[in-house]
Amino acid sequence: MTVFNFSAGPAVLPAPVLERAQNELANYAATGVSVMEMSHRSAEFMDIAERAEASLRRLLGINDDYSVLFMSGGATMQFAMAPINLSAPDDTVAIVNTGQWSTKAVKEGQRFANVHVAASSEADGFCSVPDFDSWDVPASAAYLHYTPNETIGGVEFHSIPDVAGDIPLVADMSSTILSRPVDVSRFGMIYAGAQKNIGPAGITIGIVRKDLLDRAREDAPSLFKYKSYADSGSMINTPPTYPWYMAGLVFDWLEERGGVAAMAKINEAKAARLYAAIDDSGGFYANPVAKNARSWMNVPFTIADDALTPVFLTESADAGLVQLKGHRSVGGMRASIYNAMPEEGVDALIGFMSDFRARHG
Amino acid sequence: MTVFNFSAGPAVLPAPVLERAQNELANYAATGVSVMEMSHRSAEFMDIAERAEASLRRLLGINDDYSVLFMSGGATMQFAMAPINLSAPDDTVAIVNTGQWSTKAVKEGQRFANVHVAASSEADGFCSVPDFDSWDVPASAAYLHYTPNETIGGVEFHSIPDVAGDIPLVADMSSTILSRPVDVSRFGMIYAGAQKNIGPAGITIGIVRKDLLDRAREDAPSLFKYKSYADSGSMINTPPTYPWYMAGLVFDWLEERGGVAAMAKINEAKAARLYAAIDDSGGFYANPVAKNARSWMNVPFTIADDALTPVFLTESADAGLVQLKGHRSVGGMRASIYNAMPEEGVDALIGFMSDFRARHG
Repeated sequence: MTVFNFSAGPAVLPAPVLERAQNELANYAATGVSVMEMSHRSAEFMDIAERAEASLRRLLGINDDYSVLFMSGGATMQFAMAPINLSAPDDTVAIVNTGQWSTKAVKEGQRFANVHVAASSEADGFCSVPDFDSWDVPASAAYLHYTPNETIGGVEFHSIPDVAGDIPLVADMSSTILSRPVDVSRFGMIYAGAQKNIGPAGITIGIVRKDLLDRAREDAPSLFKYKSYADSGSMINTPPTYPWYMAGLVFDWLEERGGVAAMAKINEAKAARLYAAIDDSGGFYANPVAKNARSWMNVPFTIADDALTPVFLTESADAGLVQLKGHRSVGGMRASIYNAMPEEGVDALIGFMSDFRARHG
Repeated sequence: MTVFNFSAGPAVLPAPVLERAQNELANYAATGVSVMEMSHRSAEFMDIAERAEASLRRLLGINDDYSVLFMSGGATMQFAMAPINLSAPDDTVAIVNTGQWSTKAVKEGQRFANVHVAASSEADGFCSVPDFDSWDVPASAAYLHYTPNETIGGVEFHSIPDVAGDIPLVADMSSTILSRPVDVSRFGMIYAGAQKNIGPAGITIGIVRKDLLDRAREDAPSLFKYKSYADSGSMINTPPTYPWYMAGLVFDWLEERGGVAAMAKINEAKAARLYAAIDDSGGFYANPVAKNARSWMNVPFTIADDALTPVFLTESADAGLVQLKGHRSVGGMRASIYNAMPEEGVDALIGFMSDFRARHG
């Protein structure tokens, strides 16, 4: 049985990437050793590392004004690292709150700076994105942080906010990076945990404008300073080598598929079909998010008769559609349809939803 | 050609572990998905995670007085995390300096506490371990830190220091953990980056006495607090799932081989044969370390005629003995012979050394 994995993260990886990783797991490029067994400073691994960065730069059009960092700790570590690197303790940082992940950024950020919530969609249950016109960003803000895609709520910004003056824009792109083209030059800093659209868990990508690298607090741990990574090719110490290698394989796969512009077309179409299946179900299924803010990557949905939720989850899993359970804080279902989820997987889900509704509607 | 990989880390993994990982890479236990694609909160991954911890507890005899933590960032992150968790900014922490890794612990530690170097072998070029009797540990020290095995210098402590009073003993065991039995109850905290004797790079093991968990500084980043890991089963956020899984496979392999007591016998014998080959070479090869402090894990050696060093490295690599180049700060050769280096690999190296000497001596 073909299994389609809708996990929100760690998430599905492209089948050709897994196949290649499997083939060369014990013997990489006739070296006789696994990538996992290579010194990070060996010629072979340095080549893997540099090619991965070059591929990511091509995919996102990242120019030399930016450093690309390979870190660990995920977005949660960045919630502390961003203020520690980009603000002073007395500074104000502005954060837009559109759901659980930006709420975490606010809470951790408050421990390291004065956080000003520039806009929030909490009043409507985080089911929309606040109009850019309503954002209240202090002119003195050290930076403005937002979450282009909220993995749990399934809320996504479909354009990039304009920021007045020279306030750096910082974005947690964990669950949207590489799903579509993005104008990196609009950002001061982008970060993303790997385990949705990049590779396995354990590595975190940072893209930082170089003129911001000198703002880190003196008393920060060495591994907390973006500049340490930028100056050392992200090899201050042993980096997570295998996740880095896997990320490179995913980048190769994306380039072979035509890059992020090609992926965006597929992603938009996958999401449109799935939302249509929900909206056209006569109220059997529902998604609560404002239509202009629906995520291409994470599609939460509920069944009007909530007693059917566990039935849906059991039967869908039996049909090979796995990890559809909604986040524990939300309930219902969530289909995460990242780059690596094939169109066939989305269509199989839509077919199952239609069949389930026919049997239970 | 059989390749034997003497890398200091990331290092050789057991062949049966790589074989198993390869077999189940794309489809773990008939789930239809890779371990890399599983939610860290899925039943399948929780089982992997819990079994790995249970196995490590059996291997090292870790009782319920201790929490086992799965972190990231390697020993370098711990050089900051240890003082931040176990001391106040005005406290004194005592560190024994036996080489490059403990020197790094001193330098990073000085940024977070008053570091008192309790003993040092710097005067003899870090080629010995200071007698326990000579250690000067202030009675007020928040803890005493040492490095049981120095990966670069190849210097190892073959017994555990007694600490007066209730000063917690903290050890960076990155390159010696699991190579022999250790009485964990003598320690307040043990940490180890995975990439030598545990698994691939990207995960760091901590073993902390539970009564020490409440000493962390309030202003520490959430992911810096040992207690956050202890309270959440190391799932504050998405952990490095695949390295965790690989560590579990290595633990299984160690248990199948008879555990750390069985490994200690093999490791001691492997090291003894290699040091004998150096010592019995009539001065052709040399190892500078005091005999009572020679590492079982990392064996640096030089050739009297240094012009032969590049020849040795080229010819040994051609013979399938790879990653023998000494650390860039030391030069010469270094053979790292961790648990996963089979006896055949050590014997192949000894045979090559003998042949090389016959041809060039």
